[in-house]
Amino acid sequence: MNILSPSILAADFTRLGEQISEVDRAGAEYLHFDVMDGLFVPSISFGMPVLKSVRKATKRILDVHLMIENPERYVDEFADCGADLITVHAESCRHLDRVISQIHQKGKKAGVALNPATSLSALDYVLDKVDMVLIMTVNPGFGGQKFIESSYGKIRDLKSRMEAAGLHTDIEVDGGINADTLPGVLEAGANVIVAGSAVFKGNIAENVRNLKNIMEQK
Amino acid sequence: MNILSPSILAADFTRLGEQISEVDRAGAEYLHFDVMDGLFVPSISFGMPVLKSVRKATKRILDVHLMIENPERYVDEFADCGADLITVHAESCRHLDRVISQIHQKGKKAGVALNPATSLSALDYVLDKVDMVLIMTVNPGFGGQKFIESSYGKIRDLKSRMEAAGLHTDIEVDGGINADTLPGVLEAGANVIVAGSAVFKGNIAENVRNLKNIMEQK
Amino acid sequence: MNILSPSILAADFTRLGEQISEVDRAGAEYLHFDVMDGLFVPSISFGMPVLKSVRKATKRILDVHLMIENPERYVDEFADCGADLITVHAESCRHLDRVISQIHQKGKKAGVALNPATSLSALDYVLDKVDMVLIMTVNPGFGGQKFIESSYGKIRDLKSRMEAAGLHTDIEVDGGINADTLPGVLEAGANVIVAGSAVFKGNIAENVRNLKNIMEQK
Amino acid sequence: MNILSPSILAADFTRLGEQISEVDRAGAEYLHFDVMDGLFVPSISFGMPVLKSVRKATKRILDVHLMIENPERYVDEFADCGADLITVHAESCRHLDRVISQIHQKGKKAGVALNPATSLSALDYVLDKVDMVLIMTVNPGFGGQKFIESSYGKIRDLKSRMEAAGLHTDIEVDGGINADTLPGVLEAGANVIVAGSAVFKGNIAENVRNLKNIMEQK
Amino acid sequence: MNILSPSILAADFTRLGEQISEVDRAGAEYLHFDVMDGLFVPSISFGMPVLKSVRKATKRILDVHLMIENPERYVDEFADCGADLITVHAESCRHLDRVISQIHQKGKKAGVALNPATSLSALDYVLDKVDMVLIMTVNPGFGGQKFIESSYGKIRDLKSRMEAAGLHTDIEVDGGINADTLPGVLEAGANVIVAGSAVFKGNIAENVRNLKNIMEQK
Amino acid sequence: MNILSPSILAADFTRLGEQISEVDRAGAEYLHFDVMDGLFVPSISFGMPVLKSVRKATKRILDVHLMIENPERYVDEFADCGADLITVHAESCRHLDRVISQIHQKGKKAGVALNPATSLSALDYVLDKVDMVLIMTVNPGFGGQKFIESSYGKIRDLKSRMEAAGLHTDIEVDGGINADTLPGVLEAGANVIVAGSAVFKGNIAENVRNLKNIMEQK
Repeated sequence: MNILSPSILAADFTRLGEQISEVDRAGAEYLHFDVMDGLFVPSISFGMPVLKSVRKATKRILDVHLMIENPERYVDEFADCGADLITVHAESCRHLDRVISQIHQKGKKAGVALNPATSLSALDYVLDKVDMVLIMTVNPGFGGQKFIESSYGKIRDLKSRMEAAGLHTDIEVDGGINADTLPGVLEAGANVIVAGSAVFKGNIAENVRNLKNIMEQK
Repeated sequence: MNILSPSILAADFTRLGEQISEVDRAGAEYLHFDVMDGLFVPSISFGMPVLKSVRKATKRILDVHLMIENPERYVDEFADCGADLITVHAESCRHLDRVISQIHQKGKKAGVALNPATSLSALDYVLDKVDMVLIMTVNPGFGGQKFIESSYGKIRDLKSRMEAAGLHTDIEVDGGINADTLPGVLEAGANVIVAGSAVFKGNIAENVRNLKNIMEQK
Repeated sequence: MNILSPSILAADFTRLGEQISEVDRAGAEYLHFDVMDGLFVPSISFGMPVLKSVRKATKRILDVHLMIENPERYVDEFADCGADLITVHAESCRHLDRVISQIHQKGKKAGVALNPATSLSALDYVLDKVDMVLIMTVNPGFGGQKFIESSYGKIRDLKSRMEAAGLHTDIEVDGGINADTLPGVLEAGANVIVAGSAVFKGNIAENVRNLKNIMEQK
Repeated sequence: MNILSPSILAADFTRLGEQISEVDRAGAEYLHFDVMDGLFVPSISFGMPVLKSVRKATKRILDVHLMIENPERYVDEFADCGADLITVHAESCRHLDRVISQIHQKGKKAGVALNPATSLSALDYVLDKVDMVLIMTVNPGFGGQKFIESSYGKIRDLKSRMEAAGLHTDIEVDGGINADTLPGVLEAGANVIVAGSAVFKGNIAENVRNLKNIMEQK
Repeated sequence: MNILSPSILAADFTRLGEQISEVDRAGAEYLHFDVMDGLFVPSISFGMPVLKSVRKATKRILDVHLMIENPERYVDEFADCGADLITVHAESCRHLDRVISQIHQKGKKAGVALNPATSLSALDYVLDKVDMVLIMTVNPGFGGQKFIESSYGKIRDLKSRMEAAGLHTDIEVDGGINADTLPGVLEAGANVIVAGSAVFKGNIAENVRNLKNIMEQK
Repeated sequence: MNILSPSILAADFTRLGEQISEVDRAGAEYLHFDVMDGLFVPSISFGMPVLKSVRKATKRILDVHLMIENPERYVDEFADCGADLITVHAESCRHLDRVISQIHQKGKKAGVALNPATSLSALDYVLDKVDMVLIMTVNPGFGGQKFIESSYGKIRDLKSRMEAAGLHTDIEVDGGINADTLPGVLEAGANVIVAGSAVFKGNIAENVRNLKNIMEQK
């Protein structure tokens, strides 16, 4: 099933509750929560106190993406603040297998994210342990970037690997997704779609409807 | 003049705009914005995207407190996102004199914060260059802490130093401030008062009024 | 030849000499010495001063496993303290080829260890230069972990690679090895077996005998 | 009261239980446990597993000295492993006041250590909160160092400060203490004496007796 | 086309201008500029101020090799100081795809360098975006090293990959290149040749001529 | 005696030998060598290979200023490359007393540098062990800075401390020194004068003569 995960990074933080209700009502299945620490990525976004507030405002799956160094330090706390699915970057985990178990031990779903340049070999011994792989389609944390074209091939490579291994793990994409790039990533094999300004810029309900339309046609 | 700087760390992030309007209307002069990176302090709070939204919601002085490592990396960006006053920690600056000039060069006011254990000797050669000194009255970033009693003496020590040097720099306090601790810190010499739950828990307007009453009596 | 390397991490440190004599007498070929620095792994175990004492107590091969950041800083010193075989983690070496030569230049055997999630691609250009590869079968440094089942496949993958390259490098396994997991790892291709509590909990001589019995049957 | 704290760094680790019994019987009040992580200091000594064994072997006060970066990561664990008194370095704590409370919250005594070059100003706002100050009389973690002569003055400076503040906090010294340097440090104001080779080299009972004789004469 | 890139690391820094003129006149196409920060590699060589001077002394392609941590911090500045081609290490870039775009956005050519032990999998999703791949044939920054024999195979592996992908990206080699090793690396597929002492020790003009003769024969 | 130490940071690196001869002939007593690693300060200048060349070009005192993190890693090597006087920053040394001995053990003179914001309390227990204190009069490593006016007071404070302690340690100043600022720093107590563009911009011989004239009048 294809899933939409609107990223609140693009929301208006003065009326977040309202905007979350809108995406909820419009039928987005997940809510994407981008945590940036200014160290793993060159920006600081938001973390625990904001997540706690957001948790009270929605029943949707909170899809928390940790763009932080050594995420094992905070995995438990993000779980306690209301995350349903916690995704960590392969590049920032010395003990990736351990972090995945740590997330599972908190009763949450675990994802692994890969930066655009990171080889799929990072997944060699964890692919069958995770609930989702997040293929970054821009470099995380840098502003004003366009969707990286080579991502289509990378998603296809991952999909092939998964098929060869008999796996049906979710493939999420994040970065530069809009009506133009969405068909291609779906076709390549992605099924969890993060969208930021494509959801929150303009009419939210309409944006969600348009994206979901494309997603259903695939 | 005594100034109240409500910390949005204690606000409800689903209706931040509304809550900011309340503290504005109630007469708080500043709005305190606590940036935590999970490295300098053991929590990640919020950063640039939230600040941009907040900036649009208020005309008050945005009093941005950077509890982050090497704040020089992001000083310019926080200034561009709308900070009016930027405070950095002496403990996380290799080149504190430089960071202060960097803030001034962006046309903003500069503060220096000291952790509870940090000696005032950290200010020996910058006290006359800053617009504000922030004396932490709890350890930043740790939850559930009480006001540290020895802070009264530290504020008095700072006030004495400033008087000896003929300086009238603002003294801000942050952590565990409420109706009980406020009179003591004012008496000791603080004049910019950060309050979190003492403002945002319960009736905001009433909370602000009570705190400002105490502040006017001094 | 199959080799047993009892890990003193599970020994009683108040009578280490005695316990080492027991494993020696019982016929264990190596002695495994787990160095943890609290940074690469979340525990601090022991280092140079303990190694020096241990060296005096045994003639066996001292198999020193450095679970530390930037091991090149201390390789020479561990060699001087009596290590015979020094294993470093691929994940903590910027210049892995160099560290391997550094160990060889000290006249010692060199091993490379891989965390459970680490791809074998880390060995692409060093496999033919090392004397041993250590496949971690738990995440190093975390307490109370069970043998990771997917390790069997990883050992087999490594064995295949080695056979394809005509190599007979030792394959060591470490973590959760006992009478239940031992047959599987031997079958998969491991021949140097680290065992901690499976050796030191209970009757040491008997434990060693049991493990060696299994090892000889393969 | 003067207290002797023999440092097991100089003990024979193959028969630690025996050596600890000897110092216990000889009347040493504390046992000094030097934790080094190879990062704060250039050596790795020992940590949790060794402490657990040692705890079972003695009823004396276990005086644990953490020469490690960011000791707050492991304070709770060292307390759980049996430490009675935990000393952290001012140089490696961003939030020293917090670490002191953390130790106290675990029901343990808290010490602060200062490297030879560190100013007493590091104690300005914590001196009245700690149970002990450890004045390093050599640079920690470096081998083959002699007692630093300027330490006498530093101890006296600290003693004066304490007297001026009406404090009776313990003053510990560590490094190069023997029959020659002991009288001077006692006279200067130290009352908790760490001794390594001066206790463990040669006849332990006799060494302890000699040192305690000197300590009683003061 | 085969290209010679003399490394000024081996030059006499008291008469750099003169030596650069010699290699220019002798027909070397590039000038290799090795930046070392003492952190990524264990030596500090030279950086911006030296590059600015060198830029004024030659019209040749300045081939700047950044052996530094997090090169994204200084890429723009090296471009502004006169670099024509900037090579970064895969091992020191969290966001390698991003650094490559950053270099291209400054209008410069981008290279990626791999340490001897680094797998070619590091190039999986960037190979078609870079202008050059630098295969280190010694461990960078360590003195007195010999050419690593296994490099021939690694260059061939890379060349095969490139041919399979229809790419004609430059392959540079650096470390231990001289008249003995040069034929082998050319044959394996390298076409940009860094040479240090093989150029600057002895008669520069003659050295360049000899190396270029070998390069032309291939 | 007043000493001039021209900083080659401002020299033309294509003809360094020549420029060094000029300052030598013009009578400058020292040659200042500014090592920057891009981590302690935001620029990378030059290091060992350049120092080796410079050493062959002059008999003057090579005054090496290490603006690098953890200088203890490279102190021995800089001594071996020809430094006569090695200055480290108090801010980048965990074990400052130790680094000072390390320099002395190499038979070199030892200096301690303080950034503009650093308190003199950093010198409390090392002032009588160093041969020189370097008071930074700009923030090191940042371009285009002016002399910091408050430096006069800081030099005077240091001079007073030294006089109170009966010390005659050299006081060096570095940053923004020219004919305008020189009289003030001399008067305040500095006697070793670093000058960069004030020496190397324009006629070197004349520049040196002018500065030395001012220095002799004091």
